[in-house]
Amino acid sequence: MIEVSGKKLKQYIEELEQLEERRIQVVEETKEVLADAKGEGFDIKIIKKVLQIRRMKPEKFSEQEALLQTYIDALLEETS
Amino acid sequence: MIEVSGKKLKQYIEELEQLEERRIQVVEETKEVLADAKGEGFDIKIIKKVLQIRRMKPEKFSEQEALLQTYIDALLEETS
Amino acid sequence: MIEVSGKKLKQYIEELEQLEERRIQVVEETKEVLADAKGEGFDIKIIKKVLQIRRMKPEKFSEQEALLQTYIDALLEETS
Amino acid sequence: MIEVSGKKLKQYIEELEQLEERRIQVVEETKEVLADAKGEGFDIKIIKKVLQIRRMKPEKFSEQEALLQTYIDALLEETS
Repeated sequence: MIEVSGKKLKQYIEELEQLEERRIQVVEETKEVLADAKGEGFDIKIIKKVLQIRRMKPEKFSEQEALLQTYIDALLEETS
Repeated sequence: MIEVSGKKLKQYIEELEQLEERRIQVVEETKEVLADAKGEGFDIKIIKKVLQIRRMKPEKFSEQEALLQTYIDALLEETS
Repeated sequence: MIEVSGKKLKQYIEELEQLEERRIQVVEETKEVLADAKGEGFDIKIIKKVLQIRRMKPEKFSEQEALLQTYIDALLEETS
Repeated sequence: MIEVSGKKLKQYIEELEQLEERRIQVVEETKEVLADAKGEGFDIKIIKKVLQIRRMKPEKFSEQEALLQTYIDALLEETS
């Protein structure tokens, strides 16, 4: 039989449950902000792309965009 | 051309970025708590099952466990 | 400027697109089987638990169930 | 006690297990193709963007790109 410290287990469980509540809180608030933005006519998909781009280093973003264009052009040449 | 209020967009973007920071903070803290628990010998998979069970109404949990047992028994009968 | 072989790229893209079609096919068929089972009164959540258990080695499953019970008992003792 | 048809349950379980095998097969083959492409110097992230773009209607893609640029410009104006 494995011995388990109920006291320590309870402490970890309660800490994790508080963190889960904070996570759910952030998820709910994010949904509200997105719903507000949508209500004012913003396109949520595009807002998420802007957030994604802002998380990247500018040079990394332009590097990726250039490589994407290179791939698209190479495919177009192949299929034209 | 679609008109977009830069001011409002900036406000939404900044709000969403703050929420994303809070989300990452919770994810990091959760990882730390789980790492601590693992370091003290707790099984993380089982801790997550305990958390899942504690989120359920007790009667719902026992109902599911009973139905699971019924399905397992029905399958055993069929394959024995 | 990065040189890209359009021919090889096209080949990889087409292979990945065929794999994506096969993946979507499996997802659709799985949805249909689950819908049929639900229609015949089966509980989908429990069916998924049965599938999960059948993927585990029997001794591993009973080991996890025993440890789960140990954690639950330790918590009950701590909170009673 | 809930009555369950072991025969029907077994049939659904086996069907779902076959589908799961097919799904895992597709996942493995996809990993292999991506590994090959990476081995030949292709950027997997960009290949996945190309696949995503090819799944979209061309006009939808250019519409999204135009709107993205509008949002980026509006933000730049606001922060310059």
